[in-house]
Amino acid sequence: MSVIYDRVALIGLGLIAGSMALAMREKGLAGQVHGYARSAETRDVAREIGLCDAIHNDVSVAVKDADLVVLAVPVGAMGDVAAEIAPHLKPGAVVTDVGSVKQSVIDAVAPHLPEGIHFIPGHPLAGTEHSGPRAGFASLFRNRWWLLTPLPDADEAQVARLEDLVRGIGANVERMDPGHHDLVLAVTSHTPHLIAYTMVGVADHLRRVTDEEVIKYSAAGFRDFTRIAASDPTMWRDVFLHNREATLDILGRFTEELFVLQRAIRMGDGQQLHDYFTRTRAIRRGIIEAGQDTDAPDFGRGKG
Amino acid sequence: MSVIYDRVALIGLGLIAGSMALAMREKGLAGQVHGYARSAETRDVAREIGLCDAIHNDVSVAVKDADLVVLAVPVGAMGDVAAEIAPHLKPGAVVTDVGSVKQSVIDAVAPHLPEGIHFIPGHPLAGTEHSGPRAGFASLFRNRWWLLTPLPDADEAQVARLEDLVRGIGANVERMDPGHHDLVLAVTSHTPHLIAYTMVGVADHLRRVTDEEVIKYSAAGFRDFTRIAASDPTMWRDVFLHNREATLDILGRFTEELFVLQRAIRMGDGQQLHDYFTRTRAIRRGIIEAGQDTDAPDFGRGKG
Repeated sequence: MSVIYDRVALIGLGLIAGSMALAMREKGLAGQVHGYARSAETRDVAREIGLCDAIHNDVSVAVKDADLVVLAVPVGAMGDVAAEIAPHLKPGAVVTDVGSVKQSVIDAVAPHLPEGIHFIPGHPLAGTEHSGPRAGFASLFRNRWWLLTPLPDADEAQVARLEDLVRGIGANVERMDPGHHDLVLAVTSHTPHLIAYTMVGVADHLRRVTDEEVIKYSAAGFRDFTRIAASDPTMWRDVFLHNREATLDILGRFTEELFVLQRAIRMGDGQQLHDYFTRTRAIRRGIIEAGQDTDAPDFGRGKG
Repeated sequence: MSVIYDRVALIGLGLIAGSMALAMREKGLAGQVHGYARSAETRDVAREIGLCDAIHNDVSVAVKDADLVVLAVPVGAMGDVAAEIAPHLKPGAVVTDVGSVKQSVIDAVAPHLPEGIHFIPGHPLAGTEHSGPRAGFASLFRNRWWLLTPLPDADEAQVARLEDLVRGIGANVERMDPGHHDLVLAVTSHTPHLIAYTMVGVADHLRRVTDEEVIKYSAAGFRDFTRIAASDPTMWRDVFLHNREATLDILGRFTEELFVLQRAIRMGDGQQLHDYFTRTRAIRRGIIEAGQDTDAPDFGRGKG
C-alpha cells in the first residue's frame, strides 16, 4: 500500500494508538508517525520500544505539520487536548479521535478547532484487557469495525481518505450518526461491560465461591467477556459519565426486564420462562441465519 | 483406547448425548452404544444419521444389559425417566446424568434407583446454541470441564471408571459437592445466561436499534455469549426452576450491585466508578496472572 498521510501525530500512546502506530508502519500508510503522551513514563516506554519515528515531550511540537492528528486519550480528556493543540494544527489537517462515545466528544472538541481543520470523529470497536504503549499490536483492528461519525458539513474527500487509512490497517468501516452510535454502543458494549464488571464484583463478594472457580467454570463467551472487565478503569469511567443518558436508559430497561424473569423464577412460572427464551432464541437465530453474525465463534470446532 | 463400558445406553438424543455417541464411537470407548428418545422424530433422525448402534422405541429395552446409562434429558424430566428405567437396569450398572443442576437431579433420581445401581451425577460444561441429534459433534467436550458430584457412599472404582470415560472423550474431570456445584454454576453460567437472554430481549424491544446492529457491533465475548441465548428453551427453563434458590441469591446480589453503579453514573460520581473498576480489574488480573484462565481467548491474535 502507499502512503495516505505524510505525517501522522498520535496524541496519547495507549493500546489503540500503539496498535495504530504499528499497523500504519507495517503497511507503509504514513510517511512519519509522531507521538505524544502526557506521562513521562509512557513516553519513555514508547521511545524504548521504538513505537514511533519520534516521541515529543511537547504536544504542540507533536502535532506540528501533521496531516492527520489522532486523539487517543480517555473521552473525558478530549476537550482539553483539543484546546491545547488547536493553535498548532497545520491548516487543512484532519483531526480524528478514537473515543467510545461520540456526541460528547464532538461537543467537547469541535468548538476548539479552527476553520479549515477537518474533524472526523471515529471509534474502532477493538480492544483487549491490556493498556499502555506495550499493549499495542499491529493486527488489533483486523476484521474489526471502525465507526466514523462525520459531521453534516464534512468534506467527503477527507472522510474517504480517512476510510482508506482505516481499511488499510485492516478494519471494516461504517458511517453512523453520532447520537445513534452512542445508543447502539450503550446496548452492545457499554451496558454489557457494566454487567461484566458487576458479575466479577458479585462473584468476588460471594466468598463461598473462589475467584478461581468463577473463571475456571465460566460459560463460554462470558469468560472472555469478564476478561474485558480488567480494562483501563479511567477509560471506562469516562465512557459511562459521557454516555450517561443512553446507558441509564438501557440499564433501566435491562433491570426492568430482568426483574420480570426473576419473578417468574421465584413463582416457578415455567411457561413464562419458556416463552421468553423461545422469543429470544428466535431473535438470535434470525440474526444468525440472516448471515449478520459474521465474526462467528466456533465453540472449539476449530473451523478457523 | 480400549473399551471402558461394553454397552452404553443414552436416554435422550440431543446435542450432549449425540456428541457423546460420536466421541465414544470415534475413540472406541464403548462396545455398543444404544439410544432412546421420547420423540419419534428424534429417533428417526438418529437412525437416519446412524448416531448409535441401535435406536429403541422402548426405553426399557434401551437400558437392558447396559453397563452405563446416561440420562441426557432436561433437568425437569430426570425423575420420571429414572422411575421408568429403574426396574429394567442391569444389576451393578452405572447411571449418570448430564444435567446442569445437581442437587435437584439427585433428589429426583436417587430414590427411584434400586440397591446395587451406582448413581454418579455429572455435568459437562459444554454446549452450543444448537440442539437435537444433528447438533452433536465428537469434539464438543475437548478441553472442557466435566464435573462429577458423586454421593458420599459412591464406589470409588466406579467413579474412577466413569472418569476414564470422560477423559477418554477429551474432557477434564473435577469432583465437586452437589450443592457447591449448583452455587458455582449459578454464578458462572446460570445468572450470566439469564443476563444474556435479557440483553437480547432488551435490544429487540428497543426498536431504535436494529437486531442486526446489536449483533454486528457487540463487544468481543459478549456476542458469543448472546449466541448461547439461542439455546434450547426447555433446558434453560428447567435449569432456572431447579436451581432457583442459588440463582435468585446471585441475581439479588447482582441487581443490588448494579444499582450502586447505576446511581454512580446518574450522580456523575467518577471516583466511585473508577474505584470499582480498579477493584474488579485487580481481581480479574490476579486470576489471569495466577494462570487459572487457561482456556484463554486470543482476541484475534491467532496464537492458536
